[in-house]
Amino acid sequence: MLAKSPSRILLAAVSLLGSPSLSVSACIASKSKLPKYPPFSSSCFGLRSVVRVAETEMEADAAQEARNREAFRQAVVNTLERRLFYIPSFKIYRGVAGLYDYGPPGCAVKSNILAFWRQHFVLEENMLEVDCPCVTPEIVLKASGHVDKFTDLMVKDEKTGTCYRADHLLKDFCKEKLERDPAVSTEKAAEFRHVLAILDGLSPEELGAKIKGYGITAPDTKNPLSAPFPFNLMFQTSIGPSGVSPGYMRPETAQGIFVNFKDLYYYNGSKLPFAAAQIGQAFRNEISPRQGLLRVREFTLAEIEHFVDPEDKSHPKFSEVSDLEFLMFPREDQVSGQAARRICLGEAVSEGIVNNETLGYFIGRVFLFLTHLGIDKERLRFRQHLANEMAHYAADCWDAEIECSYGWIECVGIADRSAYDLWAHTDKSGVPLVAAVKFSEPREVEKLVIAPVKKELGLAFKGDQKRVVETLEAMGEKEAMEMKATLESKGEVEFHVCTLGKDVTIKKSMVTISKEKKKEHQRVFTPSVIEPSFGIGRIIYCLYEHSFYTRPSRGGDEQLNVFRFPPLVAPIKCTVFPLVQNQQYEEVAKRIAKSLTAAGISYKIDITGTSIGKRYARTDELGVPLAVTVDSTSSVTLRERDSKQQIRVNVEEVASVVKEVTDGLSTWADVLWKYPTHSFGTTED
Amino acid sequence: MLAKSPSRILLAAVSLLGSPSLSVSACIASKSKLPKYPPFSSSCFGLRSVVRVAETEMEADAAQEARNREAFRQAVVNTLERRLFYIPSFKIYRGVAGLYDYGPPGCAVKSNILAFWRQHFVLEENMLEVDCPCVTPEIVLKASGHVDKFTDLMVKDEKTGTCYRADHLLKDFCKEKLERDPAVSTEKAAEFRHVLAILDGLSPEELGAKIKGYGITAPDTKNPLSAPFPFNLMFQTSIGPSGVSPGYMRPETAQGIFVNFKDLYYYNGSKLPFAAAQIGQAFRNEISPRQGLLRVREFTLAEIEHFVDPEDKSHPKFSEVSDLEFLMFPREDQVSGQAARRICLGEAVSEGIVNNETLGYFIGRVFLFLTHLGIDKERLRFRQHLANEMAHYAADCWDAEIECSYGWIECVGIADRSAYDLWAHTDKSGVPLVAAVKFSEPREVEKLVIAPVKKELGLAFKGDQKRVVETLEAMGEKEAMEMKATLESKGEVEFHVCTLGKDVTIKKSMVTISKEKKKEHQRVFTPSVIEPSFGIGRIIYCLYEHSFYTRPSRGGDEQLNVFRFPPLVAPIKCTVFPLVQNQQYEEVAKRIAKSLTAAGISYKIDITGTSIGKRYARTDELGVPLAVTVDSTSSVTLRERDSKQQIRVNVEEVASVVKEVTDGLSTWADVLWKYPTHSFGTTED
Repeated sequence: MLAKSPSRILLAAVSLLGSPSLSVSACIASKSKLPKYPPFSSSCFGLRSVVRVAETEMEADAAQEARNREAFRQAVVNTLERRLFYIPSFKIYRGVAGLYDYGPPGCAVKSNILAFWRQHFVLEENMLEVDCPCVTPEIVLKASGHVDKFTDLMVKDEKTGTCYRADHLLKDFCKEKLERDPAVSTEKAAEFRHVLAILDGLSPEELGAKIKGYGITAPDTKNPLSAPFPFNLMFQTSIGPSGVSPGYMRPETAQGIFVNFKDLYYYNGSKLPFAAAQIGQAFRNEISPRQGLLRVREFTLAEIEHFVDPEDKSHPKFSEVSDLEFLMFPREDQVSGQAARRICLGEAVSEGIVNNETLGYFIGRVFLFLTHLGIDKERLRFRQHLANEMAHYAADCWDAEIECSYGWIECVGIADRSAYDLWAHTDKSGVPLVAAVKFSEPREVEKLVIAPVKKELGLAFKGDQKRVVETLEAMGEKEAMEMKATLESKGEVEFHVCTLGKDVTIKKSMVTISKEKKKEHQRVFTPSVIEPSFGIGRIIYCLYEHSFYTRPSRGGDEQLNVFRFPPLVAPIKCTVFPLVQNQQYEEVAKRIAKSLTAAGISYKIDITGTSIGKRYARTDELGVPLAVTVDSTSSVTLRERDSKQQIRVNVEEVASVVKEVTDGLSTWADVLWKYPTHSFGTTED
Repeated sequence: MLAKSPSRILLAAVSLLGSPSLSVSACIASKSKLPKYPPFSSSCFGLRSVVRVAETEMEADAAQEARNREAFRQAVVNTLERRLFYIPSFKIYRGVAGLYDYGPPGCAVKSNILAFWRQHFVLEENMLEVDCPCVTPEIVLKASGHVDKFTDLMVKDEKTGTCYRADHLLKDFCKEKLERDPAVSTEKAAEFRHVLAILDGLSPEELGAKIKGYGITAPDTKNPLSAPFPFNLMFQTSIGPSGVSPGYMRPETAQGIFVNFKDLYYYNGSKLPFAAAQIGQAFRNEISPRQGLLRVREFTLAEIEHFVDPEDKSHPKFSEVSDLEFLMFPREDQVSGQAARRICLGEAVSEGIVNNETLGYFIGRVFLFLTHLGIDKERLRFRQHLANEMAHYAADCWDAEIECSYGWIECVGIADRSAYDLWAHTDKSGVPLVAAVKFSEPREVEKLVIAPVKKELGLAFKGDQKRVVETLEAMGEKEAMEMKATLESKGEVEFHVCTLGKDVTIKKSMVTISKEKKKEHQRVFTPSVIEPSFGIGRIIYCLYEHSFYTRPSRGGDEQLNVFRFPPLVAPIKCTVFPLVQNQQYEEVAKRIAKSLTAAGISYKIDITGTSIGKRYARTDELGVPLAVTVDSTSSVTLRERDSKQQIRVNVEEVASVVKEVTDGLSTWADVLWKYPTHSFGTTED
């Protein structure tokens, strides 16, 4: 975790982007018997059972596994970069660390995922989607806590001024010692593991002491390092020409929703619950970005703020997800060293593992969303935040973590943030961000009334009067009733005025305290916020790893790359290949292409003379699910990517068959039943 | 225009955002006989014929029209703000000038328009869509010219330091004099009109002289003003923690495409032409934003860069748009004081009014895009840039201008920018951004070869040798052949070396100049770029004005607001109303709601007991095209927004009928034929 104070930042934006590698829970979870990444080959990225073993054995396995993981990641990343799924931004100018472009297939995958997100969340729940600017004035981020607390600890090379993240240096040092230094004693190894486990909780002073104690120096120069100091991670700018209005590029999209609560509540007919949503860019000026696409300086967030009455967090549609069963990792299991386990969501809520139905509903919907995209459900877990990860005001918080070659990555945070955010903006702006529920009939309530007698107080305290009055009025019910009793029995009482930093004597004549009965027609309160927050780039990267596999070419002489994207995600739905270069086939191909455009299906046409096998391989590597090969003028061959099965379809019909499958109205199996299979002619090499 | 130098900025980003009010052409076009904005009432925003009249009469009309225009705009803007189409950003903190949120209906309109843009351009032309970061390092924007030239002229209140746009103050002064000061003489009035016409072409000195000459002072304080000085409009920031890497928030999305040209060209099979596209945020730190939603500090651009061989700008699909006829405003017509006129696109290209087929093709596609959204084609014109508006390298440039209450607004720029952008990045990065066309057979070409004899030059010029060599090598063919002739006849020649600032004597022994025959297998060249660039926010605002009308309520006692959005654009496609509050009807309503969600149709359900007429009025104001009223348990009433016609449809069928109409597969007229009309029961009040 990056922010050290219990603020919103701990729960949402940072958590989405926080250090995805070793954390307490990750350490525990990685104690599996079978290596997570077997020697890299074509087909061995299957499931693994999780069994605990002795630590020494684990470390030997871990080193081998680390090499395999690295090889697998390289294979994926090479394919992604070669096929322009992404491009290091401003590459011709040698790039900028932590900035990446989505190239054509990556951009299509992203917009497919965002369209499905809109369908699955916004449309399904009738959410109010908004779109706010990235440029944000300081006052908003002051209220949210980002100006003061959205920081990482940094150390500087004392000679060159180069900056490093303090926790990264310490982490690297410990990992290096554990993985590569055979001379490390058992006690020392235990110490390094302990440091890794508590890393996120270290204060600046503790972190500095460890760095000094281990003699860690600047990695590039071996120069000594400064003591750790906080660096604010927001990109700062200035709004308008005068230079007097500081602004920041938003670190999350949520604040734009909170500041609009009043209008949105009214738009929703002044009724709770309702949810608002926003998709947009967020920014984070990383000290030294690493881990490729997982830790970047600009990224797309999709955030939901579900506003709910704190006294009723039930959800009318909870029953639709309560039977789901998947890997959950409750706080207690993490602390007691157990592994994540399959839990039925309904039971998790009824047993109080998950705080409330609404939080549970969103956990279930997130599970459906991610698995629908193609995330392997055996490598997806919902991990509850430990007590020290959570802000004091938060009711509960779960991260959807996806396992990839970097470890378990936080991709979605689902937090019950109670009333904190609305309260913080109410406090700072003076605009009440509250909701009201009318009682069916007026209720009689007892209300505490504190009436300072200003004349008496003025005589007694003169210039301090105002502060004494304010402090009296701010008393809670218990304190006030105690004062009343003391005043009645003793006639005066010692009273601490914190804004004066001293005690004063309050006499009976100076204040009247009473309880009055009043009729109330409604209950006015600050709504609770339940926030599912999606790091779209991280989801996409994990999906790439989960979708990637290799298989031997027909000749067996090379390994071919495939992305097994479901049609929903696939950047291009279909390719069109004339089998051989001739005008007749090319005209049929163009006719089919036109009908695909009319049906709104993205396609790629390849009229090069390359062998059909090579053309299939090229598009398998882009994850294109279906290929149309024009091998006659009346009917064509339709081939499915993963099974390589082929059927014959009439030219006129082919666009509608492709549409049926890619829209999810039919499966490939359905289509196989309806059309003759094709096993001759267009071989793969 | 804002940028005074002929750079990319003149043609694209600034033009999209440039001053939309009075310009030379706008002045000419506003000389219509009939008032453009008649007294504001329900139904009078129709078409106007354009007839020229005497100027004095025009000015009297103009003042009245300005008031009507203002009233109309207020009615639109009030509705937009009340129904949360947009919200001034950070409103509870008193907002920030030039920043707006899209509220729920506005956000839906925007995402509908962007989805259609993707369908109409990206999918239709198989464009390569990319998605690049907003944070951009300085070197990229140095190459593009933005760091040096993306400026506005600013003046400062000499006492308070408040900043103003210099041209705005002068413009306001002249308009105020023309519209409100009856004492202005005919000569003076002519002078003010002249100033307005030449405003965009004034140098900082000329602008300063005018401001001083007219005695213009700071609007708020009447203090004296500083001389005009340039202010760079980019939001500046710093990348990384060290503070040594300046960066900017991109002022346009195009640069992200240009720097990726090499990879995209390869991705396209090293073939031209192809187009890349990008949708994303762009930023512009306006000095003093005004004109509401039209001049903002952060906005969404959708840009296309179509790369083409400069020797072949034909377009294979031009015939699909060549028969279109619409309002065009060629350069010559503007200069000679004529009005925009209907021209057939095919003729415009064949007569050379539009420079080439590809540019013409995109003009046609933009026309289809805008009118499909609901932009009134009588209030849409394509205006060619005047010679002084265009950069020296540009081949031709047209703006799609839409008329609204602010005048003619530049909403889309369509420019043939020649090879400038790729060349600028080639020059700065050292990476050749070029394309190659293989000749069908090798060609013999004569090549100029200049071979400086470095030894001789070193002896003669010592430390200056390098600059002399560079200057010799940079000679063009004509200059070099002249030098060769002089050297052969006279043995030496005087030669100006500009980098030394002096002439040197070149002797015959110092350089060999010859022409050699070489075989070439391909032609290597920098592609031309044709760039359609869409200001999405401006298009949306103009669409709001074109879609807005009012009509009397049934009782005739009030005017009701309606947005006549086509289903494609409408933020919500359908509403569901139980006619009266009863459980049976509410259950039917929920069943219908569920089937609408399943069909992917956005809807709003309203189960309040408000009269059905009021509920219709509420959703007419959101532009919802269809309303389902549940008035029985078996069949329901389906009502169309503009005609208010009603038909009866079975409960089971209604979702599919709604889908047919909102997807554009059927029109309302088609549906009217198929289902019984309904003229009783659910009255509008």
